[in-house]
Amino acid sequence: MRSMLWNHRVRPSGDRDRIVVVGGGFAGVRVVNELARLPVDITLIDRTNHHLFQPLLYQVATGELSEGQIAPALRGMFRGDAGVRVIMGEVDGLDLEHRTVHAFCAGADDTLTLPYDTLVIAAGSVDSYFGHDDWAEWALSMKTLDDAQRIRSRILGAFELAELEQPGPKRDAQLTFAIVGAGPTGVELSGQLSVLCHRILRDEYRSIDPSQARIVLLDAVDEVLPSYHPALQRRAHRDLDDLGVDVRPRHSVVGVDETGLDVDGPDGRSRIEAGTIVWSAGVRAPALADELARTAGIARGKSGRIPVAEDLTLAGHPEVFVIGDMADVEGVPGVSPAAIQEGVHAAKVIAARLQGHSHPGPFRYLDKGSLAVIGRQRAVADIPGLRLAGLPAFLLWALVHLYYLVGWGNRIGTITRWMWSLFARNRREQVISMTSLTSDAESKLRLRRVVDRS
Amino acid sequence: MRSMLWNHRVRPSGDRDRIVVVGGGFAGVRVVNELARLPVDITLIDRTNHHLFQPLLYQVATGELSEGQIAPALRGMFRGDAGVRVIMGEVDGLDLEHRTVHAFCAGADDTLTLPYDTLVIAAGSVDSYFGHDDWAEWALSMKTLDDAQRIRSRILGAFELAELEQPGPKRDAQLTFAIVGAGPTGVELSGQLSVLCHRILRDEYRSIDPSQARIVLLDAVDEVLPSYHPALQRRAHRDLDDLGVDVRPRHSVVGVDETGLDVDGPDGRSRIEAGTIVWSAGVRAPALADELARTAGIARGKSGRIPVAEDLTLAGHPEVFVIGDMADVEGVPGVSPAAIQEGVHAAKVIAARLQGHSHPGPFRYLDKGSLAVIGRQRAVADIPGLRLAGLPAFLLWALVHLYYLVGWGNRIGTITRWMWSLFARNRREQVISMTSLTSDAESKLRLRRVVDRS
Repeated sequence: MRSMLWNHRVRPSGDRDRIVVVGGGFAGVRVVNELARLPVDITLIDRTNHHLFQPLLYQVATGELSEGQIAPALRGMFRGDAGVRVIMGEVDGLDLEHRTVHAFCAGADDTLTLPYDTLVIAAGSVDSYFGHDDWAEWALSMKTLDDAQRIRSRILGAFELAELEQPGPKRDAQLTFAIVGAGPTGVELSGQLSVLCHRILRDEYRSIDPSQARIVLLDAVDEVLPSYHPALQRRAHRDLDDLGVDVRPRHSVVGVDETGLDVDGPDGRSRIEAGTIVWSAGVRAPALADELARTAGIARGKSGRIPVAEDLTLAGHPEVFVIGDMADVEGVPGVSPAAIQEGVHAAKVIAARLQGHSHPGPFRYLDKGSLAVIGRQRAVADIPGLRLAGLPAFLLWALVHLYYLVGWGNRIGTITRWMWSLFARNRREQVISMTSLTSDAESKLRLRRVVDRS
Repeated sequence: MRSMLWNHRVRPSGDRDRIVVVGGGFAGVRVVNELARLPVDITLIDRTNHHLFQPLLYQVATGELSEGQIAPALRGMFRGDAGVRVIMGEVDGLDLEHRTVHAFCAGADDTLTLPYDTLVIAAGSVDSYFGHDDWAEWALSMKTLDDAQRIRSRILGAFELAELEQPGPKRDAQLTFAIVGAGPTGVELSGQLSVLCHRILRDEYRSIDPSQARIVLLDAVDEVLPSYHPALQRRAHRDLDDLGVDVRPRHSVVGVDETGLDVDGPDGRSRIEAGTIVWSAGVRAPALADELARTAGIARGKSGRIPVAEDLTLAGHPEVFVIGDMADVEGVPGVSPAAIQEGVHAAKVIAARLQGHSHPGPFRYLDKGSLAVIGRQRAVADIPGLRLAGLPAFLLWALVHLYYLVGWGNRIGTITRWMWSLFARNRREQVISMTSLTSDAESKLRLRRVVDRS
């Protein structure tokens, strides 16, 4: 049963246009930001209560930054914009004909119905396990803050397990971390994990030497960072070698189970016993894209994404925009600068319509380049007309990320933390969360005895 | 089946004394600190991997500080002390005759057996629900970091629920926070919660006004902060009144259920509908105290604690020390300064024995006074010979807490954060953790629909 309860709850909007934005990531937040000053009623709906700065998520997963530092509350971001309303809930239905969005919200007695004049869908992406969704049970996703906290607890927990284990294959497996996917996320996580093992945790154990931990970075591609210039790929590979990461391009994962992975490589099939497996191998559009394609009667693009017109609207529905990772736009990668640019463009089109100005024309993606950090003070920067590596690339990386972080408090906190880490050997966030561990299928198994008794 | 696996794992100790310390709280950590430089083998065992600075836990529960800022990893604290070994596990058996401790550890194939020459038990306390353990399902405990994260998610989640609710009794209940127990924890949490409602979250919602939230602080005692001087009690009560907290001394909780509390007060029985209930009403000794009393054949003291001799050892077992909240020592309250002093004293006795020095004599508790902060810049300080309130007490409170925090990184981070909060209106940690929420019985119910679909 769906109710129109919503209508009773919003302040009377009079003749103001109603804009519903689905998703509070880079794309959605930018749309709201750009339109917040116009006389419109904006509803931003997200499954969480925060805007996640995904490029630094691996630093939460490895204990360098705290959750709040990369995830300001969406409400706080739009506190001063009286025309913006934030809802924590999950969109589960679209009615393009009647221009309404249906959403589940924890607090509502019923499904909410949100009528719109303009709809912006920016629901991002989910992990793609190449059709093997059962792998998700063992290969940890790293998309949300809950994921990052679980990975942190699992990584630190693996060392705890190993410390109490006899030397042998089981202990070796507990000290093996497999990271599937050698894009920026996989490369950055591997590098940080190496710093954790070699620098941060050194001298903290008595039976094991954390620097003996094995970090394996696997990908079917020919070289790490496949979208980068070959010279930078080689440089990143060498930097990872220096950090002790076992880098294996041209290795495809063919099986994932409780104790490790099966891998096909140039030398045939092999087995990697690994206590911790992190998945950063690829993404696909979320379930909402199915619903949208079905409702609109269109075919889905690559990775299940939604093909859009050159102004980012849905074919036959100029009032519906699809932006960010969910949109399939020729030549535009699924990265945060693209999501931001698409958000700005969608907002321009919407504002032009509202104000009766001329249409701003088709979306043009400006490739500002890519940055990936490797370990502590090394990075690669692939900027059009400029290729950097080492410390200069690292400094550029740090500046760009600080610039895009939301809020001065978070910027100052993050840079302070990074400066501190140049000298100190500790990590700020080393808490193993039992809640986080026990919500995880594999650990549930392992920790059952402990938890049953507590 | 118990194995002696442990013996194979520790480095050969030769003739060095083996000291096992159970619990990494204020008492246990202090013992290890004091003895770490001596030629002994120390094993510190704790259920978690961190030392929790409990006096600031309520600041994590209200989003002011991050988890890591008040919880350094135990391993990191003793990294440089080669004679100290840290184990994450739970003690579940004591054999005083054979001088061994049995523990469950997540990683071990079997129960660990730890032989000792000296045993220090500092396992702290758990919440006491006055014999109504079923209340724990609805009245949230605030003893661990997992607890604090759950409370933070519940508090912020309550506003999300209320924002989508029609005006009426259900919404009022969602915006009611009941805190049971008006000791320092309850008073400090109430004050911070008021700051959250009136200052931090102001203007963030569109249907509700968070400053209309009701914070009820209940306790059976005659006045808040029962251990303080009456003048300071009255001052604290007035400060809480000013902050809009509904303070109700002389109110006993007689029932707790899914939707609220039943309370007996001077005017008879009443009902408080509350979406969030936090329990800070009292503590008792943990299950390990039962085991210890049974094994040693002694009667337990008040709140199930263990009576000890004047040098903090167990009757008939001079090699076993019981310190901190678990020890029942005449005239010594269950507060962190007492735990620290007991830790120092136990270490002195142990060191004197090892070095053949004379026994340092009985433990003497030095009451350094008490401090409780109320809201933003108000506090009460009840120091022997000195009673302060308002800003001077607040400054003293801040100094003392910074001094006792472990690690310069955490001190600098915390003071920076507090200074920032004087001016900025945001909270650093506002993330609602779904993992945390859904591990909670009540929220499971409420969020079932959302979660089932995700």
